[in-house]
Amino acid sequence: MPDNSVLENSVPLSIEWKNDELYLLDQTLLPHNVVMERQETVEQVWQSIKMLKVRGAPAIGVAAAYGLCVALKDETNLPIGEFAQLVEEKAGYLTSARPTAVNLGWAMNRMSKVVKATDLDDPAVIYNRLIGEAKRIHEEDKALSKGIAEVGAPLIREGMGIMTHCNAGSLATSILGTATAPMYKAYEDGVKFKVYANETRPLLQGARLTSWELAKAGIDVTLLTDNMAAHMMASGHIDMVIVGTDRVVANGDVANKIGTLGIAILANYYEIPFFVACPSSTIDMDTQSGDHIPIEEREGDEIIHVFGAQVAANGTQTRNPAFDVTPSKLVSGIITESGMITAPYDQGLKEFFEGK
Amino acid sequence: MPDNSVLENSVPLSIEWKNDELYLLDQTLLPHNVVMERQETVEQVWQSIKMLKVRGAPAIGVAAAYGLCVALKDETNLPIGEFAQLVEEKAGYLTSARPTAVNLGWAMNRMSKVVKATDLDDPAVIYNRLIGEAKRIHEEDKALSKGIAEVGAPLIREGMGIMTHCNAGSLATSILGTATAPMYKAYEDGVKFKVYANETRPLLQGARLTSWELAKAGIDVTLLTDNMAAHMMASGHIDMVIVGTDRVVANGDVANKIGTLGIAILANYYEIPFFVACPSSTIDMDTQSGDHIPIEEREGDEIIHVFGAQVAANGTQTRNPAFDVTPSKLVSGIITESGMITAPYDQGLKEFFEGK
Repeated sequence: MPDNSVLENSVPLSIEWKNDELYLLDQTLLPHNVVMERQETVEQVWQSIKMLKVRGAPAIGVAAAYGLCVALKDETNLPIGEFAQLVEEKAGYLTSARPTAVNLGWAMNRMSKVVKATDLDDPAVIYNRLIGEAKRIHEEDKALSKGIAEVGAPLIREGMGIMTHCNAGSLATSILGTATAPMYKAYEDGVKFKVYANETRPLLQGARLTSWELAKAGIDVTLLTDNMAAHMMASGHIDMVIVGTDRVVANGDVANKIGTLGIAILANYYEIPFFVACPSSTIDMDTQSGDHIPIEEREGDEIIHVFGAQVAANGTQTRNPAFDVTPSKLVSGIITESGMITAPYDQGLKEFFEGK
Repeated sequence: MPDNSVLENSVPLSIEWKNDELYLLDQTLLPHNVVMERQETVEQVWQSIKMLKVRGAPAIGVAAAYGLCVALKDETNLPIGEFAQLVEEKAGYLTSARPTAVNLGWAMNRMSKVVKATDLDDPAVIYNRLIGEAKRIHEEDKALSKGIAEVGAPLIREGMGIMTHCNAGSLATSILGTATAPMYKAYEDGVKFKVYANETRPLLQGARLTSWELAKAGIDVTLLTDNMAAHMMASGHIDMVIVGTDRVVANGDVANKIGTLGIAILANYYEIPFFVACPSSTIDMDTQSGDHIPIEEREGDEIIHVFGAQVAANGTQTRNPAFDVTPSKLVSGIITESGMITAPYDQGLKEFFEGK
């Protein structure tokens, strides 16, 4: 896919660096208001990450890299020692916005190394190198999604109905997303198909984000409540499922947003292919099976209230597991930036990493 | 179950007739406010039915029967001819509140026959007979749910987790409900079990009604979003599913609230029994299979807004089928007031009605 493809002009972007300034799409205002917020200070970038204005592991890594440049822009007249110290301090500060997000620390380490690796003593020159590194991180992330797009797009054929869940979209990455990347590519190639986006309770990422970003790009997308999946499959609307993932483990089991397991079982019942799309960095070969993946349990208030509307009595008992684990036997293939991995997954994943 | 069982004091009632006055629980205010609204006029009763303050086919039949008494209470000094004419007029008026609801016309016919069948000429005496008929309709409906309770309760064993969907509860009938009737009976019998209620998007009857009424009665109930069902089954929390139904047809296929089909497939995958509870009046032997059941498609606004909170962009394409059809091969048994029907359903249902 060429860098200046039509997609980069139509797919909503979560992050833009223009005229030496960082703009972040405030995703907390979606789908009501589309605001690209200029980031004036590093404190503002920290807040944007903290408050989930920018979200998705790849996207927050990129946002933090540029955020560090925002912190340093007016400090290039400092003595080199003080400047280098400021880089460390602000990198640590940005990492603290969401301490468990791996990409955040990883991006800050890369930025920090630029300073440590040089014997230049002009902060203005180093500042330009830091911008260069942030742009490289950004471009590398785009390349991952574009790789997934190339590998996955051939699966999408004229007239298909494709179901997806949650938001593994452009909004969660630098561009194109993971689950949505093959869709954007097929759309650009002129293939006509329909997407069915499950709303994804409790936080409704499918309603607020996926159906919004796909429609914005011109893709024919229909929003469903999560409990319509079986009926839509039974009535012949769904030919394929593509979802993202938070973690694939060594035997091919897949952790993803709550509800994914149910869709995989329904797809299996109706003999509909079920694909998972992710960069290879999401594959964790150190965990043997899905049984060892801890499942985050969130507050019950997300069940009792829906964006301000109270839908159940105060004090109602709830469960709120944020993820579930789909066993690899229900997965038709894992779409990565450098190829498709299929069953048997223990062997396929091992060979995939040996070949890299 | 004795008439004055502890349940009648703890299960929320949708309808009460006390001191010659009708009280209806305003279900549109649940779960925030519990208001038993005294019905002062027949126009108020009509509005209560129209606005879904009272809902569920059995419940609105009973409400209308008492509603006719409300209309006539202060008219017993009319000449007998005018009184009889007023009965017809008000019965037609109440039927018009929800013209497609079968139980409404059926209840009005029964009330009307009381007047037509008598040669008494004292409206005060006839008025008392009408109250008697309304009470009989009410008691008969209670007896149906109590029959379902007796047939279904033995399925519920100590320590079980039971999943249900939508509200086939006490609130939709005179008491005890259909899917919930075996739960209330088992609870009264001292069996300890847990209920998992799916919230049931888009209208959230599981959140607003089922989890509220079961908790009110003292039953251990946990509210889930619809997409948690597979995870809860996979993690061993669910031992049985019981749902209600809008229509069972001659081959045993079951139409019920959207999402029921998905739960049935998941239960089948995890080898969990899946039961349907209904009075035999819900079984339609004139329709051969589920393929012939029309599925109501509702407005997309129910998907885009959740009780006032907008969750997707204006103009988002949606689907909103209100029901789905579960094939009989996924149904472990149909719990009726006069026995359990099991596969093969075409034969079992035929014999059931021949034996009645």
